[in-house]
Amino acid sequence: MAGKILIVGSIALDNVRTPFGKVEEALGGAAVYSSVAASYFAPVRLVGVVGNDFPAEHEEFLQKRSIDLRGLEHASGNTFRWSGYYDFDLNQAHTLETHLNVFADFLPRIPQEYRETEYVFLANIDPDLQLMVLDQVKSPKLTVCDTMNFWIEKKRDSLAKVFERVDVVFINDAEARQFCGTTSLVKAARQIRRMGPSAVIVKKGEHGAVMVFGNSYFAAPSYPLEDVSDPTGAGDSFAGGFIGYVASTGDISESGLRKATIYGSTVASFNVEDFSLRRLASLCKKDITGRYQELRAISQFGAE
Amino acid sequence: MAGKILIVGSIALDNVRTPFGKVEEALGGAAVYSSVAASYFAPVRLVGVVGNDFPAEHEEFLQKRSIDLRGLEHASGNTFRWSGYYDFDLNQAHTLETHLNVFADFLPRIPQEYRETEYVFLANIDPDLQLMVLDQVKSPKLTVCDTMNFWIEKKRDSLAKVFERVDVVFINDAEARQFCGTTSLVKAARQIRRMGPSAVIVKKGEHGAVMVFGNSYFAAPSYPLEDVSDPTGAGDSFAGGFIGYVASTGDISESGLRKATIYGSTVASFNVEDFSLRRLASLCKKDITGRYQELRAISQFGAE
Repeated sequence: MAGKILIVGSIALDNVRTPFGKVEEALGGAAVYSSVAASYFAPVRLVGVVGNDFPAEHEEFLQKRSIDLRGLEHASGNTFRWSGYYDFDLNQAHTLETHLNVFADFLPRIPQEYRETEYVFLANIDPDLQLMVLDQVKSPKLTVCDTMNFWIEKKRDSLAKVFERVDVVFINDAEARQFCGTTSLVKAARQIRRMGPSAVIVKKGEHGAVMVFGNSYFAAPSYPLEDVSDPTGAGDSFAGGFIGYVASTGDISESGLRKATIYGSTVASFNVEDFSLRRLASLCKKDITGRYQELRAISQFGAE
Repeated sequence: MAGKILIVGSIALDNVRTPFGKVEEALGGAAVYSSVAASYFAPVRLVGVVGNDFPAEHEEFLQKRSIDLRGLEHASGNTFRWSGYYDFDLNQAHTLETHLNVFADFLPRIPQEYRETEYVFLANIDPDLQLMVLDQVKSPKLTVCDTMNFWIEKKRDSLAKVFERVDVVFINDAEARQFCGTTSLVKAARQIRRMGPSAVIVKKGEHGAVMVFGNSYFAAPSYPLEDVSDPTGAGDSFAGGFIGYVASTGDISESGLRKATIYGSTVASFNVEDFSLRRLASLCKKDITGRYQELRAISQFGAE
């Protein structure tokens, strides 16, 4: 039976524009993308905060995906909002506006009945809040964190503490280089790994991902998409698919985490095919396993 | 028995500076890097031009690698010289000076006894010269070309003709995007493939390479090096290792070309570990097969 997953992070209403279209006031946020991605594999418990302007239909959508919202806090004020755009280089998000709103005062309170959740994903939020979550949960089987450049610049020491305490660190290529002050991604990934986690997964967008597990190295391909509509949430859905798969199998061996990385990459590849959660909301398990099999086929080659 | 390989391209004396050191008047040039790389797999015939200042020791070195120099033209004047440097972003070469010297008037004349060579590699030179070579060779089993941004800008039509006539196109990621006017590498690779070649291999430096073969797609990992000393010749040694392996097996099926891509990537990974041909000159077959096996290990994951 699949283990349960606790996900803590941002819930947002996004305005996003890319060369291929735009959305306004669309459901977003790292905790939302990762929860929906993980929900294809295992039961999810979501902890975050929304304002009293948060549309009921979004909560209904999450509940329909069997995401447990007992940990969803309703605060008075507006929901966190992010506005940004992408140019033709879809690897680079440009932020226009960030209104933290109710998220500014968010202190994650993990409900009693969630504290023994086996799998914990600390989506991208203030590392001090990530540490607060780690203080509240009881002997999880696997803890995973994600982060962003803002925290590397503003809260480096707290972030380092998070890296020391979790089992798996997700980070993107630019952030890994920035955190470690090196141009070598290989060096950066190994350096973070030596800080404590069993595994570091560096997301490289269209170039796939790499995982350092102990002293071992894994190169994961990305799915060859001709068109990407909106990269928002790619990293979050990657991590969500990853922890979802791990929770569904309980396999935290290197081989299990390699497969989880491919599942994460698979789910992220669907996510970027449309805006907001449109594509991610409408998958079936067969879509995911089909693309997983394709990723195996595109990365195989014979013995020497 | 391994087939023979004809390689046509530049022979240079390079001044190269990187954050990790420098060399002056070092042996270089696309045809040299690719010939030495290929020579680990199959006999190579080199066609190019040097001036009367070309050090005898370099010719002796090439001959020691069993590279047939009967097609090496000695012209009066100086050998082609390139000066450049790399900053910490080792993906980007900055050219300081290019002195074509004897290379300016080079017209490739393929010796009669070379014209039926089975495997032909057109290293990066003027596409009009590449076409001249294709006009001279007789029913080769496999033709492979490489190019650079300069020819995409200056001789696009001739380059397109080369792409239409060869079996395999090597190109790097920036060049593929530039040639096709798209940010999508997947689209660009497929677009060039539809121009005629059976396979297009896009080199992505530290991110490995992708091959489009017919409608099929292959993602090749790069070897995870912590330190790169000098990227000069990486692409040339990649292509050289590729065609060398194909010539050694005669296998031009998709599966054969996938393995050849990994061999190319392997040889290139050694090349960048030291300046000029220092590392490439001192390999043994076991080094190469060892790293090939490592590349298999770092890219494997289980069935879903």
